[in-house]
Amino acid sequence: MLKYEVEAADRVFHALADANRRAVIERLTRGPATVSELAAHLGVTVAAMVQHLRVLQDSELVRSEKAGRVRTCQIDPAGLRNAEAWLQHQRMEWEHHLDRLGALLDDRTKESGS
Amino acid sequence: MLKYEVEAADRVFHALADANRRAVIERLTRGPATVSELAAHLGVTVAAMVQHLRVLQDSELVRSEKAGRVRTCQIDPAGLRNAEAWLQHQRMEWEHHLDRLGALLDDRTKESGS
Repeated sequence: MLKYEVEAADRVFHALADANRRAVIERLTRGPATVSELAAHLGVTVAAMVQHLRVLQDSELVRSEKAGRVRTCQIDPAGLRNAEAWLQHQRMEWEHHLDRLGALLDDRTKESGS
Repeated sequence: MLKYEVEAADRVFHALADANRRAVIERLTRGPATVSELAAHLGVTVAAMVQHLRVLQDSELVRSEKAGRVRTCQIDPAGLRNAEAWLQHQRMEWEHHLDRLGALLDDRTKESGS
């Protein structure tokens, strides 16, 4: 894994380790929202929301656009996809290990039975 | 989401936000290993590895058993499964939102064309 991929994974999992930031993502999967709407939805100040959004944007979980004085946020699928891909890969490696173990045990059972 | 589920998600994503802890998981998906083997594999002290393993066990990503003086670690699939399920759910919600948006745009195109 390349250094920037390791750092990207650090950032995305760090971003997801906060319940408020996960709540922002859960809200944005249902459609875009402004910073004020997100702050109101979570019951936090706009200043606190701006901080959370910075972390979420740095980890490519959220992107935003400013039109006039209003900043609208939406899901950036890149971050979610990267995190899910890493976890899926680990689960598959683990299942592959269990399959090999199962096959080994089957062979031994047959050998001791023959 | 129940409070203990929120806290469990906090813990698992926090545990995954560290490159060394992810490297432990990547190693353990290929089969169990002792604490010393993991420390040697990552080039860290046994004391540092014990700290990492505590975080990984608290988040149900790793489990361990002691036989005599040797502690052997293996993957605990619960943590990986929970984290993957949350991410998958968000991705599906987001794709569902995009589908609805696509259908809406199709309807409008048809309306303006008729």
